[in-house]
Amino acid sequence: MSEEPIIIRISKEDNVGVVANDTGLPKGTLLDDGTRLQDDVPSGYKVAMADIPAGGRIIRYGQTIGYSNRMINRGELVHEPAITLPDAPGLDAIPLSDNPEPELEPLDGYSFKGYRNGDGSAGTRNILGITISVQCVAGFTNSIVRRIKEELLPKYPNVNDVVALNHAYGCGVAIDVPSADIPIRTIKNIAANPNFGGQIIIAGLGCEKLVPERLLSEDHKNSRYDADMIILQDESFTGFNEMAGSIMRKAEVHLERLNRRKRVICPASDLVVGMQCGGSDAFSGITSNPVAGFAADLIVRAGGSLMFSEVTEVRDAVHLLVPRAINSSVGKALIDQMRWYDDYLSGWGADRSANPSPGNKRGGLSNVVEKALGSIAKSGTSPIVDVLAPGERIRRKGLTFAATPASDFICGTLQLAAGINIHVFMTGLGTPYGLAMVPVIKVGSNSRMSRHWHDLIDLDAGQVALGQKTIEEMGWELFGMILEVASGEKTVACDRLGLYNDLVLFSPGPVT
Amino acid sequence: MSEEPIIIRISKEDNVGVVANDTGLPKGTLLDDGTRLQDDVPSGYKVAMADIPAGGRIIRYGQTIGYSNRMINRGELVHEPAITLPDAPGLDAIPLSDNPEPELEPLDGYSFKGYRNGDGSAGTRNILGITISVQCVAGFTNSIVRRIKEELLPKYPNVNDVVALNHAYGCGVAIDVPSADIPIRTIKNIAANPNFGGQIIIAGLGCEKLVPERLLSEDHKNSRYDADMIILQDESFTGFNEMAGSIMRKAEVHLERLNRRKRVICPASDLVVGMQCGGSDAFSGITSNPVAGFAADLIVRAGGSLMFSEVTEVRDAVHLLVPRAINSSVGKALIDQMRWYDDYLSGWGADRSANPSPGNKRGGLSNVVEKALGSIAKSGTSPIVDVLAPGERIRRKGLTFAATPASDFICGTLQLAAGINIHVFMTGLGTPYGLAMVPVIKVGSNSRMSRHWHDLIDLDAGQVALGQKTIEEMGWELFGMILEVASGEKTVACDRLGLYNDLVLFSPGPVT
Repeated sequence: MSEEPIIIRISKEDNVGVVANDTGLPKGTLLDDGTRLQDDVPSGYKVAMADIPAGGRIIRYGQTIGYSNRMINRGELVHEPAITLPDAPGLDAIPLSDNPEPELEPLDGYSFKGYRNGDGSAGTRNILGITISVQCVAGFTNSIVRRIKEELLPKYPNVNDVVALNHAYGCGVAIDVPSADIPIRTIKNIAANPNFGGQIIIAGLGCEKLVPERLLSEDHKNSRYDADMIILQDESFTGFNEMAGSIMRKAEVHLERLNRRKRVICPASDLVVGMQCGGSDAFSGITSNPVAGFAADLIVRAGGSLMFSEVTEVRDAVHLLVPRAINSSVGKALIDQMRWYDDYLSGWGADRSANPSPGNKRGGLSNVVEKALGSIAKSGTSPIVDVLAPGERIRRKGLTFAATPASDFICGTLQLAAGINIHVFMTGLGTPYGLAMVPVIKVGSNSRMSRHWHDLIDLDAGQVALGQKTIEEMGWELFGMILEVASGEKTVACDRLGLYNDLVLFSPGPVT
Repeated sequence: MSEEPIIIRISKEDNVGVVANDTGLPKGTLLDDGTRLQDDVPSGYKVAMADIPAGGRIIRYGQTIGYSNRMINRGELVHEPAITLPDAPGLDAIPLSDNPEPELEPLDGYSFKGYRNGDGSAGTRNILGITISVQCVAGFTNSIVRRIKEELLPKYPNVNDVVALNHAYGCGVAIDVPSADIPIRTIKNIAANPNFGGQIIIAGLGCEKLVPERLLSEDHKNSRYDADMIILQDESFTGFNEMAGSIMRKAEVHLERLNRRKRVICPASDLVVGMQCGGSDAFSGITSNPVAGFAADLIVRAGGSLMFSEVTEVRDAVHLLVPRAINSSVGKALIDQMRWYDDYLSGWGADRSANPSPGNKRGGLSNVVEKALGSIAKSGTSPIVDVLAPGERIRRKGLTFAATPASDFICGTLQLAAGINIHVFMTGLGTPYGLAMVPVIKVGSNSRMSRHWHDLIDLDAGQVALGQKTIEEMGWELFGMILEVASGEKTVACDRLGLYNDLVLFSPGPVT
């Protein structure tokens, strides 16, 4: 007996629908509207719901995702080979205006149990971070972190973890080119992440170009963290054991301070939620991203901060985002970030067609336009109050666009620098992605993968496609999970399994 | 009582000398040649041994390292502010010729105890390597390597280690730009490093752009290694535990094979020695690099392979290297690599003046010309038989120039890809640098640092500057140490302390 066909169209104007049935639909299936499938259509792939002439618009989410390069008959499979990629929206023609739309209705009464920091921010974890000024010392910090975990951490039960904030920055990175400030401010701002409680140890070498003092705050008042510094070439050290002994003693001081902290009730407005997706499929824009978007609106309504990113996955939908900017200068900042990236890619002879990945395409996503339209769903509906350049720290409550590459671990690294205290990651194909610095809630876009990866996915948004739950219901569920995870009352999959990706800097310059 | 002044001039033409005394020399000191110091001159810094008129050549190693920008009197300190950086040698004017010079005299009878591989190469260690096709799975491999080390490795006493060959490659890296092949061949060739014994496990995700199959050899015959592959998105896995179980079983198969191997006598011609320096000072070109160069000649005379690298630290001495190429096509290949790098840097508005680092300068090195002249000393005197582009694998015995950035960990990563089975690293200022994949012998350029870092430095070449040993004596000592370390009979400092840097790919393209 064949399954009831499930076809998803977001907008009435859509002339393609997405097959939501787990196992796809066979050729010959008759759909509710009278369309008969002319091809086998796998799950997540698109079917023409009307005849589309050669050169005609292919419409999903009510937007043109491309033009057909041949006559497509109603009922045919519609995928990449039949679709011509449209030009990206021109950046000069997008009108700028102050946003007349009202703010979303406030949402009161939600809170989580977090760690209150001296600068007013709140942590969702209580971690000792050890950062570095140059990759040369990464082996040293790895070795010391192992030792601190074994010898010291058990004595400080209120401290959740000790993490080496290692990265690949080295003297080779040209420090005077215009983009050189991106990786430097990223390293510095990561150390100021609320989950380190203002306690940081900096390990430096002594001969590096990025002198460790540059990782302190600009006014040298060191407002965001108390940094202790150890320089391995310091003449007072004779041999490795003295270096190790010195940093172990410093660690003990900071662990002692962190250990005195307790979780306290914090309003939901202290949440700084970073959202991104990776390994997307055609369901991402129907299930997980709209669910995330609904939760995003709840966070914003509760007075919190919400961040979305990934320039190349937003670029093709920027004409839909600019009108959501609270004023023309925020709109202009958004366009400026798109333009910077256009120039960066074209300088290398690359363009946005490098995205999506083969896996995205296998998941039913035909091109970057379709991916972008699904991607921005996670931003919800609230006004965009600010735009951050890569590596900058968040400045405002509400919805912020933090410009980053779409690469999962680079985006994650930059969102850490921007100051997120919790991360929500939507995936369709599945990834073991995790971060040691903030909890990462993983949301599956489809039930097949979510069931398969049952211990790696925290929430199955695929239930929406199957009609088992509504976007609203799952949005509230995700919002509740964010509060629970932020409170330390629920452990996410990647923390349970100890799966953590490395930090990867965005360093758009040459190495010498 | 004041110390006897030690002033080093490599060439009779040098009009500056380097102060070798540990604590420098005070103003007023009278040197043997009658020069009286007009300034305090710190250890490693240069003093004018003759009057140098404004615009005059400043000569070290018999070469012009710059032009004085003011009148410099005999006895004055000569450092960066007084020196104008000359233009880099023009690449078009360097004459190409087939090298008429005779090969060095063969050196017979030297051997080490290594692991013989199926492809004819020899390992100096017997390691299970687990590589990845995309950074998304790095958390997974880290977690699995920890588990293999705890649960399996103790059962296989002939296997030295299990190493995750993690790197930051991801789908964001534009895969179609001209330089995209560099990181890909690097990842692939690292897996073929002789120290992994032809046994490799590849962990992939399943949706990545760099499909894991591309890490196998081009002819799909997989000649250099037996690769087992695990793809996390494989539908046969339900949950993390099944993925983990699968890779643990694969690991056991490869550990079993590796465990059957024993060290056997290998001729010294099986050595593939990579040399580089990092944290150089003014002694590097007088002590550690000439000592390394003497050992390099011994390796070449014994029929082995010797590799030096670091384009920006060779660029200013390329006119001295091209005449050493065995034929004009090797000479041209050397020039081509320099030109590629010139273009790469200028495309970003950067140039070679970004090198040296502040630490180098503090160590007495005034500019990149002086650094380069000292740097090439490590190549010894033998003909250059081949030039590798970044990430390529070594093709010939003898002296090869492997083009890499000067950044220590990027150079190390690329030399691993080129197939080194032992690494020699010269340092003046000190760095805890180490690699988990091949033993790294650390040679100090000065006795002050070498004494201070007694357990981090394997050989103190500073003894040469103090006249305690000759370059020849220490060159033989280093050669002997290379054989001993390659045989597993001596443990280097970074292995004893467990200090290992991460792999860092050279990826000269944009990320999307």
